[in-house]
Amino acid sequence: MKFNIALLAGDGIGPEVINEAVKVSDAIAKKFNHEINWTPALTGACAIDAVGVPYPDETHEICMAADAVLFGAIGHPKYDNDPSAPVRPEQGLLLMRKKLGLFANVRPTFTFPSLIDNSPLKRERIEGTDLIFLRELTGGIYFGEKGRKDDGETAFDTCTYTRAEVKRLAKKGFELAMTRSKKLCCVDKANVLETSRLWRETVQAMEKEYPEVTVSYEFVDAVAMRLVQWPNSYDVLITENLFGDILTDEASVISGSMGLMPSASVGEHTSLYEPIHGSYPQATGLNIANPLATVLSAAMMFEDAFGLKEEAEAIRAVVNKSLEQGIVTEDLARKEAKAYKTSEVGDWLVANL
Amino acid sequence: MKFNIALLAGDGIGPEVINEAVKVSDAIAKKFNHEINWTPALTGACAIDAVGVPYPDETHEICMAADAVLFGAIGHPKYDNDPSAPVRPEQGLLLMRKKLGLFANVRPTFTFPSLIDNSPLKRERIEGTDLIFLRELTGGIYFGEKGRKDDGETAFDTCTYTRAEVKRLAKKGFELAMTRSKKLCCVDKANVLETSRLWRETVQAMEKEYPEVTVSYEFVDAVAMRLVQWPNSYDVLITENLFGDILTDEASVISGSMGLMPSASVGEHTSLYEPIHGSYPQATGLNIANPLATVLSAAMMFEDAFGLKEEAEAIRAVVNKSLEQGIVTEDLARKEAKAYKTSEVGDWLVANL
Ligand SMILES: CC(C)[C@H](C(=O)O)[C@@H](O)C(=O)O
Ligand SMILES: CC(C)[C@H](C(=O)O)[C@@H](O)C(=O)O
Repeated sequence: MKFNIALLAGDGIGPEVINEAVKVSDAIAKKFNHEINWTPALTGACAIDAVGVPYPDETHEICMAADAVLFGAIGHPKYDNDPSAPVRPEQGLLLMRKKLGLFANVRPTFTFPSLIDNSPLKRERIEGTDLIFLRELTGGIYFGEKGRKDDGETAFDTCTYTRAEVKRLAKKGFELAMTRSKKLCCVDKANVLETSRLWRETVQAMEKEYPEVTVSYEFVDAVAMRLVQWPNSYDVLITENLFGDILTDEASVISGSMGLMPSASVGEHTSLYEPIHGSYPQATGLNIANPLATVLSAAMMFEDAFGLKEEAEAIRAVVNKSLEQGIVTEDLARKEAKAYKTSEVGDWLVANL
Repeated sequence: MKFNIALLAGDGIGPEVINEAVKVSDAIAKKFNHEINWTPALTGACAIDAVGVPYPDETHEICMAADAVLFGAIGHPKYDNDPSAPVRPEQGLLLMRKKLGLFANVRPTFTFPSLIDNSPLKRERIEGTDLIFLRELTGGIYFGEKGRKDDGETAFDTCTYTRAEVKRLAKKGFELAMTRSKKLCCVDKANVLETSRLWRETVQAMEKEYPEVTVSYEFVDAVAMRLVQWPNSYDVLITENLFGDILTDEASVISGSMGLMPSASVGEHTSLYEPIHGSYPQATGLNIANPLATVLSAAMMFEDAFGLKEEAEAIRAVVNKSLEQGIVTEDLARKEAKAYKTSEVGDWLVANL
């Protein structure tokens, strides 16, 4: 097969981790007789520096024309202290999600047996955790009307959802639950919010189309607790944009393997794969960033975007092997053990595929 | 001194835990020569059953006339499955907060040395944790305009804040920080929300009035992570209503002492003290609920509402003693050890004051 992949390395350590994911993807392609055509494009702070906007039209066209997008990270410290600066890297991220129609963010949290002791949670709390959040990504308070009134003394943000938006996200949730343990948790704040009541009634109405799926409804504050107490009691969770932002990040640290967690954003026009860690500016250019989350994001891309399960499994297997053999960057290296460079980890993966 | 306290036992285990807090408070009053006049009033599901509304006017008048309010918990399973029922216990809670002007919810999270192993977190992560959230409680998306459009197909909720609302909450945060380690963290989502940008600019402008306080600004998703990773890196945190709902609950479970956490809500007209656990309907009437969070809420009341620090310390000391000696309800009883009844714990506290 032949694929066109848009390559959005972004800022900070983005280019370094993307580089390793490209090496591994090319090696897999070669092994399984595929051909990948990578098209790099600018986004984030580097795009602002180059052309004045964080998500240039040219980048958008490259993404739209591609079979999938592989994304690094965006963000630069020079924008950190002024969240009201007129042009910011995050705006590029939101615009990209919206224009590409990436309405579902798929965020797995799972554990690697060899890394379980890195978790802040006790082993018996975290063992066996394997959950997936589907976060709505192009609606809610992120994209509703916002602004000031009363000479700037009053600010407002509007959270809006339509039944159709909830339905298309929930449909993905039900379908995903059917491929797993058939348990779906709808996370909302229906005791307070009207949008949550719309979510709940929409999901409730869909239950009869999926009679095998057991659906539970939990309030967002209760989920924030149970994620820390019994993360392995969850399987597939669906939720709106802002709750998803908070809960997926909370979930990502409980596994102790945050530096390894991949993600996908899927929707109308294409799909995008990215590590969940950020641009980690302090590490830029040092060749120390952990490339495994990006490599595992590429594995998700092979499986979900191209339907190539065997290729994805081959990537996951070699990543597991690298973890077991301690071929890891300094964030994961055990005391006294050697820490490998970003590029050395990539080289090892390629050599051991 | 002489105090009038409104007593809102509420639903579920509310009456049982309130009963023990009253016993302990009366014993303290006797010991220190105070006189307490308790006035019971209805709220929650029991108020709906009795008079059709969850926060009756009569209850409101009793609260307004009192020097403080001691509150149990509200909620009943018969309202759980239908968050859009026209009358619900939670509405009483929100109405009460609004009408009493309780704009700041004070939520400490701390550890008891004897209970540290109950935490889902590893000991080295949780040891020394002693943080306080100030959650804005009468504004934001809880109280903004909400409703449906397009024949019910679109739902919306509006989050609104005025500079004055942010200021009065932040002022309490700065003042609290001055009595502690002079560290204040403002939690927002200023990279996305206009209300968060108003929060941030308001707090930034107040910094110069409190030159000794070191203020940090963190995004809500980052705080959701760091609370699990390094809870003891926080001291005083201020945040808006919905973020506070999620993060204070998350924080409450990390200590492993959720059943012991007290809280206060303070503001314009009076102040209210309540355990953070809910109405725990399954345990109603069984005399097994842990009364210590309510007893510690009474201690907060003595200290903060009445300025009686010695009385508060006496309550805290006897609670510590009961924990050390294992005079605890079944939720805290160690394997093989005897579990005491709710009322037995209260009796022991009174006898050992
Ligand atoms: C950078 C920010 C706008 C973004 C979000 O809130 O969606 C990030 O936190 C994320 O989760 O991808
Ligand atoms: C019951 C609910 C409306 C309430 C809230 O969200 O404020 C509760 O979760 C709380 O935190 O006191």
